[in-house]
Amino acid sequence: MRRITHLTFILVALSVLTLAPVALARQAGGSGSIYETYREVADQLIDAALADSFAYDRLAELTDTFGPRISGSRNLEDAIDWIIEEMNADGLDNVRGEAVMVPHWVRGEETLMMIEPRVADLRILGLGGTIGTAPEGITGEVLVVNSYDELEARAEEARGKIVLYNVAFTTYGQTVQYRSTGAIRAAEVGAVASLIRSVGPVSLSTPHTGAMRYSDEVPRIPHAALTMEDAMMMQRMQDRGQRIVVRLNMDDVWLPDAPSRNVMGEIVGSEFPDEIVVLGGHIDSWDVGTGAMDDAGGVVAAWEALRLMKELGLRARRTIRVVGWTNEENGGRGGAGYRDAHRDQLDDHILAMESDAGVFKPRGFGFSGSDAAFEIVREVGRLLDRIESGAITRGGGGADIGPIMREGVPGMGLSVDGSRYFWYHHTPADTVDKLDPRDMGLCVAAMAVMAYVVADMDERLPR
Amino acid sequence: MRRITHLTFILVALSVLTLAPVALARQAGGSGSIYETYREVADQLIDAALADSFAYDRLAELTDTFGPRISGSRNLEDAIDWIIEEMNADGLDNVRGEAVMVPHWVRGEETLMMIEPRVADLRILGLGGTIGTAPEGITGEVLVVNSYDELEARAEEARGKIVLYNVAFTTYGQTVQYRSTGAIRAAEVGAVASLIRSVGPVSLSTPHTGAMRYSDEVPRIPHAALTMEDAMMMQRMQDRGQRIVVRLNMDDVWLPDAPSRNVMGEIVGSEFPDEIVVLGGHIDSWDVGTGAMDDAGGVVAAWEALRLMKELGLRARRTIRVVGWTNEENGGRGGAGYRDAHRDQLDDHILAMESDAGVFKPRGFGFSGSDAAFEIVREVGRLLDRIESGAITRGGGGADIGPIMREGVPGMGLSVDGSRYFWYHHTPADTVDKLDPRDMGLCVAAMAVMAYVVADMDERLPR
Repeated sequence: MRRITHLTFILVALSVLTLAPVALARQAGGSGSIYETYREVADQLIDAALADSFAYDRLAELTDTFGPRISGSRNLEDAIDWIIEEMNADGLDNVRGEAVMVPHWVRGEETLMMIEPRVADLRILGLGGTIGTAPEGITGEVLVVNSYDELEARAEEARGKIVLYNVAFTTYGQTVQYRSTGAIRAAEVGAVASLIRSVGPVSLSTPHTGAMRYSDEVPRIPHAALTMEDAMMMQRMQDRGQRIVVRLNMDDVWLPDAPSRNVMGEIVGSEFPDEIVVLGGHIDSWDVGTGAMDDAGGVVAAWEALRLMKELGLRARRTIRVVGWTNEENGGRGGAGYRDAHRDQLDDHILAMESDAGVFKPRGFGFSGSDAAFEIVREVGRLLDRIESGAITRGGGGADIGPIMREGVPGMGLSVDGSRYFWYHHTPADTVDKLDPRDMGLCVAAMAVMAYVVADMDERLPR
Repeated sequence: MRRITHLTFILVALSVLTLAPVALARQAGGSGSIYETYREVADQLIDAALADSFAYDRLAELTDTFGPRISGSRNLEDAIDWIIEEMNADGLDNVRGEAVMVPHWVRGEETLMMIEPRVADLRILGLGGTIGTAPEGITGEVLVVNSYDELEARAEEARGKIVLYNVAFTTYGQTVQYRSTGAIRAAEVGAVASLIRSVGPVSLSTPHTGAMRYSDEVPRIPHAALTMEDAMMMQRMQDRGQRIVVRLNMDDVWLPDAPSRNVMGEIVGSEFPDEIVVLGGHIDSWDVGTGAMDDAGGVVAAWEALRLMKELGLRARRTIRVVGWTNEENGGRGGAGYRDAHRDQLDDHILAMESDAGVFKPRGFGFSGSDAAFEIVREVGRLLDRIESGAITRGGGGADIGPIMREGVPGMGLSVDGSRYFWYHHTPADTVDKLDPRDMGLCVAAMAVMAYVVADMDERLPR
């Protein structure tokens, strides 16, 4: 018995009213019925997700076979072709790629040679979108600063130098600004290039790349990340009064925009095929590592949720769509393109769900939507308490679903154990071995249950 | 009063005998007197070692300024020159370098290009002492094995291939054999090159180098370390039935033996200047990272022990000598050279002490010597209980003091928290930021107290 009648619901609600008045607010929203109705099917999905390592093996195959998938690359488009083939083989409906033009930045050779106080070839990664240097490189003295405030205070000293922001990782939000806007701020005070300490809490001589911006107001200067180790070393050298001179060579280039695709498949709804629950992650990655954590894992986990429904013969009343968005990392064109391509259907997008924090052990979801909808998804979350993945918190979404959320679609992001995310984030070490098959299975279970119930329940999730 | 008379000792021992017969065995050995006699001076040394970060700052300056210090390199000899200058400035006695000829292996360009099933430039480190390839490199199919047993079982398949030992880290002792002898075993079955999964428990795309051997019985083939990530990837590819083809290019070369030195300084003993307590570590390192953990930290901590004695005006009755041995990593010529140069004085080497496990939080010492000596150093260890560094266990020493221990000199190795040692061992991430100033101060304190007391106590440490 998957659904109970309205009368039954009222009787249950009345009995609760007499027995536990405090619980009235939640129960009256119909959520008790959700739990009862979907307990069995939720358990089926959870058990199926944990039965084997299919999703993890698929993620390994995808990332091993196609490697890094930066926008504009052959790797990315080959991966998308493969996903289309595989989604068709899984029997998903309406499998397709929807065209999106994406920025096309290509990393070249990048070297940073320290010349004084000692000669050493240091490991760097240009930040995504940086310009290159002239072929002879840029040779200059380094000025190490710990903040924009310090840069302002030492603006005179910075002129003609290479500025290094040696900023210790606190939170991503606090620290990433030096990656995003460091080249602009350094150019404002006349620096000829800028370097950052990689944005991460732990390093084994590990540079991190990531997006950066330029401004039309100031010259564009090359911008690259050092390892934590080398940034700290230069700080110590400067503190000792030593002069630091380096030569930076970077062959990074911008090419014209390239064609890419948002890749997707569906299980069309049995009663309301035009009403859509969309879930997924982004299929592009940076050009180092294989983007297993960021974010092929999110794509494959969402995809696996649909594959398991298919395998279990579960067709919800509304359509469930998995999307691998393109170009999250350096442009966000996939999310914007999806919004534009589906603008007419956005009113019927019931819920958008994204996993982009790595398929580590899940805790639940962060939800952005109305209070009424929040109470309902909290009730759905109870079905995930068995696997400790049912905590629904206020606020959440994802970069790829951001554009449709801003058009009014309720959104949620999968919440996971984030303790190691920034160890690997945007590094060569973002590979499948950092993830655990069971944790990924739990992510699949959480997304499958949430998506299925919201797509199937009597009530359309209110806005 | 630093020493008590024999009569006082007997009276104390008798009173202990009447009050606590169980404690007799240890107290009767004279150890009670050691604790009483040296409590005050031990506290002085401990307090001085923890008062500031002088040792850590010196370690940072040494490793930042001279960088990696592989045998035969200019960096190593420059570092030794600097140490001699600084030891003289500290006022140590008999500061000198003692000549030792060392092997001279030089890493060249090293690349591993995966060609099938996908093109990727993989990060490698040739193992120390490997031959290079011909300029065109070696292109071949990879056979992944998990053990020597599997290699034997698949010997026919291995012929003409590049063997990859994908062996997960358990203990260093168990895992390192594939680094040490992997090229020999692969050559025995006709492989054209051999690769290992880097010997470490954790990786952020981190290759580990380290020593390897050849045999005169079989051809010498190139031998290099992949990252854990790439070794695991190739395992998965092979498990999927994919053919893996790579091209290995290595320009590593052997040059004629080069001059180096064991660097040392002393505080000459006030009563028995010919009796020596020697302590130290090795000043050479691998050619990646800056060898802060392995083992400049050991050298600087031992050196700091002497500097603090000097600063506190403490001159023990016997001579205390700090040594930075050369060429531990790829030859052991420093330890052997020290034995040969001091062969006539080995009977008067009272104790040899080495720190070569990183100057992490210390626990105590592992000791190799007679039962009588063990009881005495245990008693000295009590002076370190205050800083939780007084645990003396059976068995211990070090690679550099091994040659003189084999001639009968009692030896001990500083025991430290080893939880992260193999994260950094022989990698570009062996840098000073991995160490903590206070932990290093504790190592200094432990070595200073142990060395001073053994050098000063009434009784000569028995063999």
